[in-house]
Amino acid sequence: MALEARAEASDRRREPVRVGLLGCGTVGTGVVKLLRHNAEMLARKLGTRLELVAVADRSLKPQPSLGLSRALIMRDPLELAARADVDIVVELLGGRDPARSAILIALENGKDVVTANKALLAEDGEQIFRAAAERGLAVGFEASVGGGVPIIRILREALAADRQRAVYGIVNGTCNYILTRMSEQGSEFSAVLKQAQCSGLAEADPTLDIDGHDAAHKLCLLVTLAFGVMLKPDQVYTEGISKIEPLDVACATELGFALKLLAIAKDDDGAIEARVHPTMTPLSHLLSGVRDAFNAIYIQSEALGSSMYFGLGAGQMPTASAVAADILESARRRLCGGRWAANPLGYPMQSIRPARVKSMDDVVCEYYLRFMAADRPGVLGAIASVLGRCGISLASVIQRERGGAAAVPVIMRTHEARERDLKLALGEIQKLSVVKARPVFIRIEEHL
Amino acid sequence: MALEARAEASDRRREPVRVGLLGCGTVGTGVVKLLRHNAEMLARKLGTRLELVAVADRSLKPQPSLGLSRALIMRDPLELAARADVDIVVELLGGRDPARSAILIALENGKDVVTANKALLAEDGEQIFRAAAERGLAVGFEASVGGGVPIIRILREALAADRQRAVYGIVNGTCNYILTRMSEQGSEFSAVLKQAQCSGLAEADPTLDIDGHDAAHKLCLLVTLAFGVMLKPDQVYTEGISKIEPLDVACATELGFALKLLAIAKDDDGAIEARVHPTMTPLSHLLSGVRDAFNAIYIQSEALGSSMYFGLGAGQMPTASAVAADILESARRRLCGGRWAANPLGYPMQSIRPARVKSMDDVVCEYYLRFMAADRPGVLGAIASVLGRCGISLASVIQRERGGAAAVPVIMRTHEARERDLKLALGEIQKLSVVKARPVFIRIEEHL
Repeated sequence: MALEARAEASDRRREPVRVGLLGCGTVGTGVVKLLRHNAEMLARKLGTRLELVAVADRSLKPQPSLGLSRALIMRDPLELAARADVDIVVELLGGRDPARSAILIALENGKDVVTANKALLAEDGEQIFRAAAERGLAVGFEASVGGGVPIIRILREALAADRQRAVYGIVNGTCNYILTRMSEQGSEFSAVLKQAQCSGLAEADPTLDIDGHDAAHKLCLLVTLAFGVMLKPDQVYTEGISKIEPLDVACATELGFALKLLAIAKDDDGAIEARVHPTMTPLSHLLSGVRDAFNAIYIQSEALGSSMYFGLGAGQMPTASAVAADILESARRRLCGGRWAANPLGYPMQSIRPARVKSMDDVVCEYYLRFMAADRPGVLGAIASVLGRCGISLASVIQRERGGAAAVPVIMRTHEARERDLKLALGEIQKLSVVKARPVFIRIEEHL
Repeated sequence: MALEARAEASDRRREPVRVGLLGCGTVGTGVVKLLRHNAEMLARKLGTRLELVAVADRSLKPQPSLGLSRALIMRDPLELAARADVDIVVELLGGRDPARSAILIALENGKDVVTANKALLAEDGEQIFRAAAERGLAVGFEASVGGGVPIIRILREALAADRQRAVYGIVNGTCNYILTRMSEQGSEFSAVLKQAQCSGLAEADPTLDIDGHDAAHKLCLLVTLAFGVMLKPDQVYTEGISKIEPLDVACATELGFALKLLAIAKDDDGAIEARVHPTMTPLSHLLSGVRDAFNAIYIQSEALGSSMYFGLGAGQMPTASAVAADILESARRRLCGGRWAANPLGYPMQSIRPARVKSMDDVVCEYYLRFMAADRPGVLGAIASVLGRCGISLASVIQRERGGAAAVPVIMRTHEARERDLKLALGEIQKLSVVKARPVFIRIEEHL
């Protein structure tokens, strides 16, 4: 009882922790809602209130129902970032500047920073993280990869004493939604993309998502957290989903696979394999059960073995929940004193060296192949001979729909082969007169 | 460059963080291996070495291959817990005493504590957590629930700004292994249990596991982390898996369900529903794909929506990886100064009140029912009438194998019903002369 009374008395004396928000768009509004709706619970967890003291936004109008009074709203993010009455600056402006300048000003002024700005971190992460580390301040960026899936914390803290072997991520909800719909409806890519755009699950300009570049950006952060080396997005082999045909999705199911856009990174004895591409995964594998706009990151670690983390990778409230968790963590730390304990990327910035990247030519996996070939005897033999000569052995062959058509699909599944050998074989096969179109190949991850 | 040089110079000046280990059995040996094998990586992350300075174990012999020299080994855990040259005490003794005394002595002496001792925390957690909080010290217990699944951190930190609605956990690997084998082999419970014991996946005395009590203990910790209230294991409705028959497992599959031992907690407007029992989950749900000895915790949160965390819940190295992550976190904090930022259970101890527990009678779910009944006309009608009178409506009926046998199984699936009404109905049905055995009922979670 004496202890309780003391603790409560000390709580009453505590000043609130003051939050300033830069940018009040979709996610920002979600954060405002969450801080307001959960104010009592957050105060109980902290022993003091989290108080939103200022919002800098170019066009925000007062919204009394959210507690956004006129007095709270300002226009200049740089001015907010320097305000003496703010402890934690939450950057949700997006883009490079003024986001970058605001974050650096906030750190210079001793404030912790929370951001969901993946693009900015990809460009200027090093400068920002160093500025924070120098002053023992926190930079929370949980929302920047996997949205509500706490993969940053998990790699940086929960798996931090273990060595990671491989990371397989479904980290782009738009692509996963499109591939799920294509599989379940048998529809064309373009039709599903249109559906997704109508329902707000794809951007008006979806290029970054469907070409795999968004996933490649996220993979770079995951590589550093998992393996302690730095990778640039242009070092990631990146292939999108726009060329996927319904026929291949159907054949994948027939062969016992789901089709996913995976971001894959492996540490092969110090050489980092990093690639983003459509991938066939066994239907019985947990990753294959990740449907629609959900994200999941599946990790293989030396001591822990397999683990997986699943949740919504985007959307107002899932993203806001990750941002608010970072705010809470910063507030807890400030109340306890001391420097921020975790390096933002798990390793001291100065110890993170550029990755030695494995060439795509040296990657080994199984392949799904589809050839459109003349429907006559000897075709299979001709194709199989080339593959054999290039050292590629076949696990199974499916020849569908005979008769009529000028070209019929010949579907093959290979055993493990080196990408260099496969490319060589496909080049030769394409020259065969019986082969009527560019061969299709999709990588298979059977043993994840 | 100047910054790098400064940081490196400051790292060189850092003293090692010194670890003392109490108990060197299976998990303890795993921790020793991990700290040794990953020493270089851990030193890089910390900027200084993690040094194992003492191991207290009743019967440990020197093992030079693990770096366990004679000089490191002592016998008395209480003596180790008070040693001035130890910063972090890792308690892997198990059981209540001397584990409890050793932890309290360590905290009194300003050391952080890491433990995997779930039973001890269930009994004496409050005292231990308060002693730590009073001194701003850390108590890491990630390994005590879900083994290598970092569910403690996730609930305490990653989901901390959100409100949890429901938690569904596969938190006992032994039960999940047995149910998976029963489903895949069609075997009897007792046969699979024997297999599991032979392969080390079940204890010689498996009672705590198969009766659901281990899961109930873990659920209590999850309830506090998720909802901020305290629950005692005897307040959790607990039903094990030993009465599950292969016929019901087969019928579950036929109806599109997997059978899992789930630990379920829901917050129904302040009333906590907490129960552990065999549960049918839709085959298409991710939880149904969690096979063998794996664990998974599926959470529904207000802002985030659904999320799931999957990994190995037991075993030497998975458990050791969780213990070592806690050691690393403590070491990081010590090097940064300040009190430990997180309350061990997410809320200040003095604010955690006893839960208001919802009576099992008031739980509403769908049910799978099996009656062994005489194979003659009118039976179905008699059973269905009783159910109807009690307000329970049927979703589907399967009548299997007709003819010959004295009693045939009548399988029914209900719509949502109140447990009180179901119990009443089953009591009446059991009295019908056409019903030849005690009715079987298994709860269905269709909408998770």
